[in-house]
Amino acid sequence: MKTTTDEQSIRALLDRWAQASRVKDLDGIMACYAPDIVAFDAISQLQFKGVDAYREHWQYCFGFMEGDMVFDIHDPAIYVDGDLAFCHYLAVCGGTAPDGTEQSGWVRGTICMRRIDGQWLTVHEHFSMPFDPETMKVADDLKP
Amino acid sequence: MKTTTDEQSIRALLDRWAQASRVKDLDGIMACYAPDIVAFDAISQLQFKGVDAYREHWQYCFGFMEGDMVFDIHDPAIYVDGDLAFCHYLAVCGGTAPDGTEQSGWVRGTICMRRIDGQWLTVHEHFSMPFDPETMKVADDLKP
Repeated sequence: MKTTTDEQSIRALLDRWAQASRVKDLDGIMACYAPDIVAFDAISQLQFKGVDAYREHWQYCFGFMEGDMVFDIHDPAIYVDGDLAFCHYLAVCGGTAPDGTEQSGWVRGTICMRRIDGQWLTVHEHFSMPFDPETMKVADDLKP
Repeated sequence: MKTTTDEQSIRALLDRWAQASRVKDLDGIMACYAPDIVAFDAISQLQFKGVDAYREHWQYCFGFMEGDMVFDIHDPAIYVDGDLAFCHYLAVCGGTAPDGTEQSGWVRGTICMRRIDGQWLTVHEHFSMPFDPETMKVADDLKP
């Protein structure tokens, strides 16, 4: 029963965060993160340490799309025990670029969470797209 | 005390796995994985489901380098509680390509583990390199 309740909490955190991402609600996104989060994002830098650096990066990323984003998480696998949880999933991520073209592709996400003072928060996340070793270009046309 | 012992077990698993990777010991690598591992690797596919598919991919990857690999993990952050653990790190990964050139770059790794029948095993791992959104090419010259 405890595990089921915890799983529900994790799923609720994931849903809140995904919805905040879609509507570019920076405060809503940041409310899901521990202050000392270490994030590996799909673009630009190896890592972002702490919510301030990561917030700035999210703001930068929003500039690639006009209006709301597409962020559809498919079949997340959720593991919870004690005060730790992790989750991995594939998602369709995209939106409308400033030039009006619709862009989307599959990304992979891993989210690692801790229960801190009774509240589940993400302490680490990792997003990426694989690249093609022949061309060294991102493989943005792959499907599961 | 329990946590310390568990952390030591996780660190030992990580060390065994990294050493097996360096010397291309496929059986040694696979011994660290749960049978139903879901892996997100830096190249080629979105995901690999199960040890058989992932073993085949590791074999393919070894073909990019002659002799031993370089795989130096820097300052892994390890979290353990109950029967779950996760770890994230940056690593220098590389080796000697078949044409004799030395190649190496920084990668990001996230490893998620479960204690199954008393033994810690990796149920999910995620490796990647970020890409440059301007060129869509892998950003293989980044440093921490």
